[in-house]
Amino acid sequence: MQLQNTKWHVHHKRVHYQETDQMGVVHHANYISWFEIGRTEAMRAAGIRYKDMEQLGLLLPVLDVEVKYHHPACYDDLVAIYTNLSYYTPVRMEFTYEIRNHNDFNKTEHKQMQPVGKILASGKTVHMWVNQEWKPARLDRIAPDIYKWLARR
Amino acid sequence: MQLQNTKWHVHHKRVHYQETDQMGVVHHANYISWFEIGRTEAMRAAGIRYKDMEQLGLLLPVLDVEVKYHHPACYDDLVAIYTNLSYYTPVRMEFTYEIRNHNDFNKTEHKQMQPVGKILASGKTVHMWVNQEWKPARLDRIAPDIYKWLARR
Amino acid sequence: MQLQNTKWHVHHKRVHYQETDQMGVVHHANYISWFEIGRTEAMRAAGIRYKDMEQLGLLLPVLDVEVKYHHPACYDDLVAIYTNLSYYTPVRMEFTYEIRNHNDFNKTEHKQMQPVGKILASGKTVHMWVNQEWKPARLDRIAPDIYKWLARR
Amino acid sequence: MQLQNTKWHVHHKRVHYQETDQMGVVHHANYISWFEIGRTEAMRAAGIRYKDMEQLGLLLPVLDVEVKYHHPACYDDLVAIYTNLSYYTPVRMEFTYEIRNHNDFNKTEHKQMQPVGKILASGKTVHMWVNQEWKPARLDRIAPDIYKWLARR
Repeated sequence: MQLQNTKWHVHHKRVHYQETDQMGVVHHANYISWFEIGRTEAMRAAGIRYKDMEQLGLLLPVLDVEVKYHHPACYDDLVAIYTNLSYYTPVRMEFTYEIRNHNDFNKTEHKQMQPVGKILASGKTVHMWVNQEWKPARLDRIAPDIYKWLARR
Repeated sequence: MQLQNTKWHVHHKRVHYQETDQMGVVHHANYISWFEIGRTEAMRAAGIRYKDMEQLGLLLPVLDVEVKYHHPACYDDLVAIYTNLSYYTPVRMEFTYEIRNHNDFNKTEHKQMQPVGKILASGKTVHMWVNQEWKPARLDRIAPDIYKWLARR
Repeated sequence: MQLQNTKWHVHHKRVHYQETDQMGVVHHANYISWFEIGRTEAMRAAGIRYKDMEQLGLLLPVLDVEVKYHHPACYDDLVAIYTNLSYYTPVRMEFTYEIRNHNDFNKTEHKQMQPVGKILASGKTVHMWVNQEWKPARLDRIAPDIYKWLARR
Repeated sequence: MQLQNTKWHVHHKRVHYQETDQMGVVHHANYISWFEIGRTEAMRAAGIRYKDMEQLGLLLPVLDVEVKYHHPACYDDLVAIYTNLSYYTPVRMEFTYEIRNHNDFNKTEHKQMQPVGKILASGKTVHMWVNQEWKPARLDRIAPDIYKWLARR
């Protein structure tokens, strides 16, 4: 189901020294990890702890990743990871992301609104629910409450 | 220039323990690093050390990354990183990649041929040559020998 | 100067999925990064942004690292990184660290006090101030205000 | 048992771009991973695949790490990871390491000899054999052949 009028979740993160490379900016692989942090926190804010899903025997591996790099993030920048559940079915989930520079924003403002700040990167990830044997699993059967929650959003 | 009849370069790599996560397989972000290793070694095999390019004042940041995950790589697997320069202009380069399981292949065979082995992931990266102020740079002007070499491939 | 009655700085961090390995716990190398985050935030809380030090031409590379692992940290744990400037001279700094589990603590309590919570790891890092040619640099000459601040703590 | 006349195992590794940071050298946390690669390959050369140990239900977590940083490793350097099993009992293993620059060495020479080349870092790790419940496990009981092999070295 394609989601309309979606809500963005925002999570703030400081850029660590180890995330830089000798170009003097954040190494591009780190954005993949930031997307993971963003969707974990977006799910937590929605009442779904991914940790609990694994305890139910559900895993959510990544099928596809896409990242576009607009401007580099730099050491010690405060970045905002905006995450949006853009599509789901009983077996798939697709998230979209925007990474924005929030050096000049107050961390406590700007929750669940449209993204603001200079855009650094954007992207998406596609996931499939699987069981512990890595066979496709239906979220609506294994965790119907969570699935209903998604439908009501 | 779209490249026809392209040659794949292959580089072998052992999966390290740190690259796994608690799903028991390689964490998906690591494939981005493997692509980077693949293109560095493909360029080296072609006579271009990326290190030397940086000493000429050229950087090759990533504009886009795409990865499709087919089957998980596991701890201690021997994986083959196949890399292919698929497109270039004086300011851009695009590489395509395939990650294959080579547990059952002899490391010294299978150089510069079509990819073999179970496919684990595939993807591409798009890059732009820039100077040290991150302004677009033309490879054909700054390193004409290297550019000619690409054209002759 | 050996510092007595030292103050611990505490910074909270969520354990990310990528930080786990197939043992099902946090891979041991990540604690080194957590120490780095801890000392960056301890310095920031004390009014010293490491980013600004680099802009003054000062780098603070690591000479020694020691970590003792007491209990594993797990995915999604809330960990507290306690950091303490334990010794300094005009050219050296030594920090000690404790990583504690704070799943059951309120994040907003427990600032700058003695460490509490189950101990997961402890360690120290030794650093030297150097200039951009990696020659030893004296903090008391290059940044006398910062050096005086250390002496007054 | 303290081991005398120990043999060093050497494994060569290229420094990757992602391993650098904005100081222009390898970030210090990566040496911990290189130690892990070194001991995995030293064990493999001795006929022990760590992967097989985990399939026997044995894990070898790290209790202690120490690293001393002598000179920085740089992007694209060829580094040699020297590893040495320096001490063991039925429940513990201690490895020592030296990281050396081998840019000017022929990769195929210098197997199992005394370390050569400019020293970049040195260190040690202490490990304990545990079972899957993380209780101490005796290698001499669970894998007596491997334990005898250690004693004969």
